[in-house]
Amino acid sequence: MSLKKVKIAIDAMGGENSPKKIFEGINISLKKNPNNFFYLYGKKDILEKDLSSYSLVKKNSEIINTKDVILDDESPLTAAKRGNESSMWKCIECQKENNADISLSAGNTGALLVISRLILKTLDGISKPALAGLWPNVKGMNIVLDLGANIECDKKNLIDFTCMGSALSKSLFDNKNPRVALLNVGLEENKGNEILKEAFLELKKDKLNNFEFSGYIEGNQIMDGNVDVIVTDGFTGNIALKTAEGTANFITKNIKKSLNIISILISYYGLKKFKEKLDPRKYNGAILLGLQGPVVKSHGSTDSIGFAHSINMCNKIVESNLIEKIKSNLNTIKS
Amino acid sequence: MSLKKVKIAIDAMGGENSPKKIFEGINISLKKNPNNFFYLYGKKDILEKDLSSYSLVKKNSEIINTKDVILDDESPLTAAKRGNESSMWKCIECQKENNADISLSAGNTGALLVISRLILKTLDGISKPALAGLWPNVKGMNIVLDLGANIECDKKNLIDFTCMGSALSKSLFDNKNPRVALLNVGLEENKGNEILKEAFLELKKDKLNNFEFSGYIEGNQIMDGNVDVIVTDGFTGNIALKTAEGTANFITKNIKKSLNIISILISYYGLKKFKEKLDPRKYNGAILLGLQGPVVKSHGSTDSIGFAHSINMCNKIVESNLIEKIKSNLNTIKS
Repeated sequence: MSLKKVKIAIDAMGGENSPKKIFEGINISLKKNPNNFFYLYGKKDILEKDLSSYSLVKKNSEIINTKDVILDDESPLTAAKRGNESSMWKCIECQKENNADISLSAGNTGALLVISRLILKTLDGISKPALAGLWPNVKGMNIVLDLGANIECDKKNLIDFTCMGSALSKSLFDNKNPRVALLNVGLEENKGNEILKEAFLELKKDKLNNFEFSGYIEGNQIMDGNVDVIVTDGFTGNIALKTAEGTANFITKNIKKSLNIISILISYYGLKKFKEKLDPRKYNGAILLGLQGPVVKSHGSTDSIGFAHSINMCNKIVESNLIEKIKSNLNTIKS
Repeated sequence: MSLKKVKIAIDAMGGENSPKKIFEGINISLKKNPNNFFYLYGKKDILEKDLSSYSLVKKNSEIINTKDVILDDESPLTAAKRGNESSMWKCIECQKENNADISLSAGNTGALLVISRLILKTLDGISKPALAGLWPNVKGMNIVLDLGANIECDKKNLIDFTCMGSALSKSLFDNKNPRVALLNVGLEENKGNEILKEAFLELKKDKLNNFEFSGYIEGNQIMDGNVDVIVTDGFTGNIALKTAEGTANFITKNIKKSLNIISILISYYGLKKFKEKLDPRKYNGAILLGLQGPVVKSHGSTDSIGFAHSINMCNKIVESNLIEKIKSNLNTIKS
C-alpha cells in the first residue's frame, strides 16, 4: 500500500461500458491503493449520474467537465486535429500541467498515442515512443515492445526500446537486472535484417550496467520465460501479439469442445486455475513509453476488474519513478 | 489413387532418423499412391542396409550413391559452395535433368533453398522464390507464405506470392477460386508499411480471374478460415509461425496440467480427436514456390507418418500440375 498520494488523470469516456466500468474499477482499486486520487474527465451530467452509486470513488475524485469525446473509429490524425476539447485531450493536459502523475484511458489507441505525444512531448533523445505490453510466460510475465506504435524502426529506435522496456520491467516487477532480447527469425548473429544486426552489434558491445542483453530470441521462445523484455518493431510486435491471441483462442475453444461436461466438472478447480492464470484482465494495460510523462492504455473491451488492474499498474509506474529509470537507462547506453 | 507414375527424387540423408523414417514413410505412402517411383540419394551402403527391411519400397525405388551430406547446422552458402557431391544437391539435379517430377528433403532448410534455386532457376519474372506452409484453421487449412525464405520483400514479391500461393491452394485443396489476403496490423487501406499499401492497391485494381483478393487480414484472424492464402514477407511470416507454435505449446501444456487423470480418461476420445486434428504431421511439408520445378521440404524432426504426408503432398503438386497453375496466375496479374 502506498503512503504518498498518487494522482491519476482518467479519460472517463473511453472504452466499452464507460464510465460505469471505470467507476467500478476505481472502486476495486481503492481497496488496494486507498491513497489514490482521480481526476475524471468527461461529460459532467453523465459522470455525475453514474458516480452517485460509488461513494468511495466520489470521495477520492473530482469530475472535470469536457464537451467532446474521441470516437473509437476516428483516425488518430482527425482526433488530434479536432479533439482539443475531448475528455482524452484534457486528461493528458492535466498531467502536462503537473496536476496528475499519470494518465489512463480505455479509448482509441491510435488517438491516445498521437495526442499524448503532441501534449507531453518525447524524452530528450527519443524520436519514437513505443507501446509496451505484458505477455504471459511459463514463469510469470514478459514485457514486449513495440506492439504497434511504430510500423518502421531504425537501429536507434530498437536500442531506445531496450532501455525503456528494461526500465519498465524494473518498475513493474522489481527486476534488478532485466534480460532483454531482440525478436528475430534465428539466434545466429547473421540472421535477420540489417537494422536488427546493427542493433545487436551495438547492444553486444555496450557495457550495460542497468540491464543485460541476451541476444536474439525466436517467436516460439517468447513464452519460455528466459528473458524479461522482448524488443521488436511495431509491425512485427503487433502481428506476433495478435497471432498469439488468435492461436490461444483457437486452441482453448477446440480443447473445450473436446472435453465432455463430466470431465469439465471433475477438473473444475484445475481449469479454473488455468483460466485465472491466463486471465487477460490481469495483464490489461499497455504502456506508452518515451514521453515526458507516463500514459497507460487500458483495453477498450475490458471490464471493471481489468480496469482496476490497469490502475494498479499506474501505481507501480508512479511509485517506482519509471521516467527516471528510463532516463538512467538511456544514459547508460549513451555513455 | 493416381494412374500416371509420379517420380520423386528424395534426399534420403536429411533430417532426424534418416534414412529409416524415410523408407518407413515411403512404405506408408505407397499404399495410397502405388504408382510412385522414388530416386533415393545418399550413401549407398547405409541406404542398402536399411532398405533391406522394406521390400515394397525396394521394388519401387532406385538407390543412387552420393559421397557427401549437407549438415543440419551448415550455413546455406557453405553448403552451396561445397555441396555439389551431396545427396541434397544430386537429388535436385535429378529433377533438373527431368528424371524426377519433384524433389523432397527433410534436411537443412536454408541449404535446400539456396541449392534448389541454384540448380532449378526461378520461373520467368520471379525474383524471389518463397517458402509456403500449411496452417490449420477452424474450417481446415490455410496456406501461408513466405515463411522465411526472404527477410525483405518489395511490392512485386508480395504480388508474386499471391499468384504462387493461390496456385498452390488450387493444387492441394482443389480450390477453384482461392481467397488471398495480405497480413497486416489493421484492416483499413491506410494501415501498414508502404510496400503493403502499394501491393494492396495493385491487387485491388487488378481484375483477377484466377483468384480473389480479400484485402488485409490481422494476426488474430489467421485461423478464422475466412481466407485460403495469407501473404507476408519472410521475416513476419517466420515470426508469426513460430509465435503461433510457441503459444499452442504453452496453452496445451498448461491445460493438460490443469486436467486430472480421471477427466483425461473420461474425455479420452474427444482429446484424441483434438490431438489428431492439430497433429503437425498432417501439415508436414513446406513448399518452395517460384522455381522451374517444385521442391518440398519435410520437417527435419517429423517421423515416418509426417514424411508420408509430405509424399502425398508431392503427389498432389505433380498431379495437379502446380507449375503451370503458377504460370497461369502470373499471367493473370500481368495482363
